[in-house]
Amino acid sequence: MKLSEIGELGLIQRIKEGLPLPHEQVILGIGDDAAALRHPPGSLVIITSDMFLEGIHFDRALFTKFQIGFKALSVNISDIAAMGGRPTAALISIGLPANISVKDVDSIFEGIEESAKEYGVSIIGGDTCRSRSGIILSIAVLGNVEEDLMVRRSRAKLGDAIFVTGTLGDSAMGLEILKSRLRVTGHGSRSLIEKHLLPKPRVEEGRIIAKNKWATSMIDISDGLASDLSHICDESAVGAEIYHDGIPISFELKEMADKLERDPLYYALRGGEDYELLFTVPMDRVEEVIKAEVEGRPLAAMIGNVIKDDRVLIDKDGRRHTLSPIGYNHFKKGKK
Amino acid sequence: MKLSEIGELGLIQRIKEGLPLPHEQVILGIGDDAAALRHPPGSLVIITSDMFLEGIHFDRALFTKFQIGFKALSVNISDIAAMGGRPTAALISIGLPANISVKDVDSIFEGIEESAKEYGVSIIGGDTCRSRSGIILSIAVLGNVEEDLMVRRSRAKLGDAIFVTGTLGDSAMGLEILKSRLRVTGHGSRSLIEKHLLPKPRVEEGRIIAKNKWATSMIDISDGLASDLSHICDESAVGAEIYHDGIPISFELKEMADKLERDPLYYALRGGEDYELLFTVPMDRVEEVIKAEVEGRPLAAMIGNVIKDDRVLIDKDGRRHTLSPIGYNHFKKGKK
Repeated sequence: MKLSEIGELGLIQRIKEGLPLPHEQVILGIGDDAAALRHPPGSLVIITSDMFLEGIHFDRALFTKFQIGFKALSVNISDIAAMGGRPTAALISIGLPANISVKDVDSIFEGIEESAKEYGVSIIGGDTCRSRSGIILSIAVLGNVEEDLMVRRSRAKLGDAIFVTGTLGDSAMGLEILKSRLRVTGHGSRSLIEKHLLPKPRVEEGRIIAKNKWATSMIDISDGLASDLSHICDESAVGAEIYHDGIPISFELKEMADKLERDPLYYALRGGEDYELLFTVPMDRVEEVIKAEVEGRPLAAMIGNVIKDDRVLIDKDGRRHTLSPIGYNHFKKGKK
Repeated sequence: MKLSEIGELGLIQRIKEGLPLPHEQVILGIGDDAAALRHPPGSLVIITSDMFLEGIHFDRALFTKFQIGFKALSVNISDIAAMGGRPTAALISIGLPANISVKDVDSIFEGIEESAKEYGVSIIGGDTCRSRSGIILSIAVLGNVEEDLMVRRSRAKLGDAIFVTGTLGDSAMGLEILKSRLRVTGHGSRSLIEKHLLPKPRVEEGRIIAKNKWATSMIDISDGLASDLSHICDESAVGAEIYHDGIPISFELKEMADKLERDPLYYALRGGEDYELLFTVPMDRVEEVIKAEVEGRPLAAMIGNVIKDDRVLIDKDGRRHTLSPIGYNHFKKGKK
């Protein structure tokens, strides 16, 4: 069955049916001119939006429809996590080719709903329309955070330690495996690929960091460690030194990089789409953060320090290398 | 100069520079993972989003870049007006072809900024990325409304009177003039065309209606009177009768329709994109609404009544005609 057979109202009806129960703060969801939320007193409204375009952000041949939906919402939730916030609600605007099947559209929304359920987010509105070229997803996510707990990018201080959650570079290697159709199999490659297709935003970790007031600054890693660290440095007017040995690399990435004779560090620094949290911690709180655990795993790893001006990578032999903020630039050819 | 020469960060810098001063409620605007707003206690957060796609919602040959930006934001503000709310902030997600000129991008944002200034809206975030096919605008607008003043679509009651602000059908006739390149000139045609290209959301009128608690239901007219009235009827589980003679038609539309030998009623009922407010009023408040003025003009005109089941148009001779909810359907061929 094609989408053109059920029409726009049929589509909206299907979307409404699959949705999880609304968040307690939602007063009015899909079906009016706007949605309405009751906002908890004493906290700020936080909001972010990101587009997820076929042919630009994802290749339809590499993602299932479910994964497209899941990832499009999850990367927005990650931005709320990076403020130390709780996500509450999302608006999903979607442009679809008229000849797409209803089954495919259902799968996209199943992915969206899975992410929404996982992170307690209500789908409260959006827009549906025809697209002339491929799938267009534009999602806005609302959340809230106590005013004194919100973590910006701009308040890193000289002498702070730099931490990162999880491991870096897995998603970029996963994408490379997918794209090149490298003949690699096994649990390791599946886990790397899944990191790319189904990223898990660090909402719980972000809340722990915020509630303990551990971070002077925080950002989620979407462009790669080098690039996102430079955003913190720019906004905070500081520099940073990163210890090569400190950067957390997964066993799976190390193994795969060995097999392919690549440097895992390249993926960690330049890869992006890890959706891990990068944050800075004043020296007197470092011990607490090092000891902190989430579900039996360390919350984060210390990877460097905030310094005055330069952005530097210190290698195994103690040599200092300039760390340039190379990430993806949407309008320039190649890397910026 | 092409957009590819200044890159994504250059674009974001240009956008930031042109923005009006932030709304007093904005704590954190562009430049972090998410934006943050202080929300006035005792009111609800309201939010809406709409896409505005080249080739679907607008034809680049008919709109200037300024008009594209102005309209994309204004139609979202109209949804906040239709809740009786005050718009506060917007997120602008924009997809642009890499070869677009910086001048054109600046013009789009000048249009967005003009609408933002007019309605006191802060641009607090969004996303910029490359598009493979034409201009993609996806905008989310936040606002707030006192909980007891919010006007939904769903509470129209049997016996209520039906009102509409402004005049209907101008925008549709304006589009027709633009599309057909009809050789019509003069003030009348310019005014109709401007209604299509630069719609003015009825924020002030919406607030007056909400603050006086005049409306049991309200919607903005985006799909045409017949279609948007049917949304109120569906959501409120009522019917409606509309008096042909009551529908406000502008002098300019009447004159142009005469000249072209068309029925102005067709444009008013089916045209859409008027962004006027359609609302229902209990009988004991009707006199107040009829007397109400905004800047010396009547606030709204009474066009019919809420009845039990049917949706009916009553013609000049008192004959009753079924009013079918024909509007634009994004996925079905032709009219739904």
